[in-house]
Amino acid sequence: MTEFDLIDLFTRAAPRSGEGVRVGIGDDAAVLRPPSGEELVMTVDAVVEDVHFDRRFRAEDVGWKALAVNLSDLAAMGARPLWALCALATPRRESPARIAAVGRGLAACAQAFGVALAGGNVTRARELALTVTVVGAARRGEALQRAGARPGDALLVSGTLGDAALGRRPGASRELVARQRRPVPRLALGRALLGIAHAAIDVSDGLLQDLGHLCEASRVGAAVRVDALPLSPAYRRSSQRLAPGRAYDAALAGGEDYELLVAVPPRRERRARDVARKVGIPLTAIGVVTRGGGLKVMDAHGRPYAVRARGHDHLA
Amino acid sequence: MTEFDLIDLFTRAAPRSGEGVRVGIGDDAAVLRPPSGEELVMTVDAVVEDVHFDRRFRAEDVGWKALAVNLSDLAAMGARPLWALCALATPRRESPARIAAVGRGLAACAQAFGVALAGGNVTRARELALTVTVVGAARRGEALQRAGARPGDALLVSGTLGDAALGRRPGASRELVARQRRPVPRLALGRALLGIAHAAIDVSDGLLQDLGHLCEASRVGAAVRVDALPLSPAYRRSSQRLAPGRAYDAALAGGEDYELLVAVPPRRERRARDVARKVGIPLTAIGVVTRGGGLKVMDAHGRPYAVRARGHDHLA
Repeated sequence: MTEFDLIDLFTRAAPRSGEGVRVGIGDDAAVLRPPSGEELVMTVDAVVEDVHFDRRFRAEDVGWKALAVNLSDLAAMGARPLWALCALATPRRESPARIAAVGRGLAACAQAFGVALAGGNVTRARELALTVTVVGAARRGEALQRAGARPGDALLVSGTLGDAALGRRPGASRELVARQRRPVPRLALGRALLGIAHAAIDVSDGLLQDLGHLCEASRVGAAVRVDALPLSPAYRRSSQRLAPGRAYDAALAGGEDYELLVAVPPRRERRARDVARKVGIPLTAIGVVTRGGGLKVMDAHGRPYAVRARGHDHLA
Repeated sequence: MTEFDLIDLFTRAAPRSGEGVRVGIGDDAAVLRPPSGEELVMTVDAVVEDVHFDRRFRAEDVGWKALAVNLSDLAAMGARPLWALCALATPRRESPARIAAVGRGLAACAQAFGVALAGGNVTRARELALTVTVVGAARRGEALQRAGARPGDALLVSGTLGDAALGRRPGASRELVARQRRPVPRLALGRALLGIAHAAIDVSDGLLQDLGHLCEASRVGAAVRVDALPLSPAYRRSSQRLAPGRAYDAALAGGEDYELLVAVPPRRERRARDVARKVGIPLTAIGVVTRGGGLKVMDAHGRPYAVRARGHDHLA
């Protein structure tokens, strides 16, 4: 199988045309028309076998996840997605059927969120890996950033936390496993929060670590209540089996949540909740932004909560 | 070393600001202002240890090459480069010093060609790999493509062919090795050929294979004379040691040349040579575009030349 056969096999199912795609896959480079009056929002991320996924993953889920984790970054900026480019690295031993299935998973995610696959590349490597670049757009000056949170802002988080981390454990329920393998980028929510939120980040490294990034970029502190963290019924059932004092570990630091964490001024908190309800992803208040003092984590009684879990380090 | 330390180490030397970079490395995504009235030209390519480079490469050359091979694609479209995003995959055993040196090589190439590093990502993997996405710009409708060559067009190629392929052989001279490890994208030439060439491609898979792509996209044939191929003095010296009848193998099919192959109407051939002279990269006529009949390769006497070499397959 040549490089060209592989590219064809891998990209066959993907939507190749879309807004602004003048020349897509098949030339030296894609030629793309940026929407006028908008800024581009662009990021790159990779998923690597035995680091981000393993043989227990369905091949379709690998492709889905590779694109979804990138779209989550666009969601955090409030951008609408336009184009993706995907570099596939594959060992020679990989079956054409598995590569086609990975491609179908990527295509399904692209289709679901209106992304055109505008470019691709295939290379040999010792393990399967997908490196995806996504490009989105936002009106000039409107993209949400990590910087911008102000003391007094409410900290809101979308969906539920910790499910993906519990989904990595042996014997995890189907629901939790799906949260880890097939994350859903909060694109509609991110866009709905433009002009409402002061700052945003997607929770990929664990709540505390990403909250730390948001606070650092905004030069503020934060106080969070563990009893306010949004936990799914599946999380609650699963965490009953954990050691005392560790029930919040996955929600605080598990990583791979791909939820949005936003800082919203109090006068707009209701509006934020309203738009979130409209797009079908609840927002939950988990704490407040403070003038300084780093990150404080408290229990239901306002006492300091001893955090034992460390942040999810994708290099660990 | 955490993910954040590694990103910092790897990107420290790179130019992070430049035309249109409003938010660069450090947020969930970059925010970029596309130049108004222009189209974007975008591509992705990867270099992987033991596939595209090995331990004999200086680390700086790995970084240089990862960006340069992408810029070569922009050169083939006649685009001016703007931004790059780089995803680094690295084994845990890799030394921080080597990663910093790879980053310096990438930075040197970015600096040399006016590219801002607008985004990055670091992940673990079993081998060192860099996947680079580059974005350039060209005026609306002006980007060169593979399609567009017409019967009667002259086929011109920049620089010299086959050096990089000979540079991969044991005992190759310093010059040839440099051609393989530190390719120079023909960006100024590509832009100078806008409005002159009908079609263009960069020669990365070997002349015949890339000429085949150009002909396929343009729905034409081609006839090439082996005695017209531009060969460097180092190539001529090195090829004397080859078996009879194989002297042109590397020039025809060696790959990794990163020269431009263009189809130019006869009335503009002189202008093409003039602009090439001005940017300091000669163009050599190697054949003509024909109405059909596939690819014909001829010797100095116009007789069919038996091509024994196969195209360079990056997956081989």
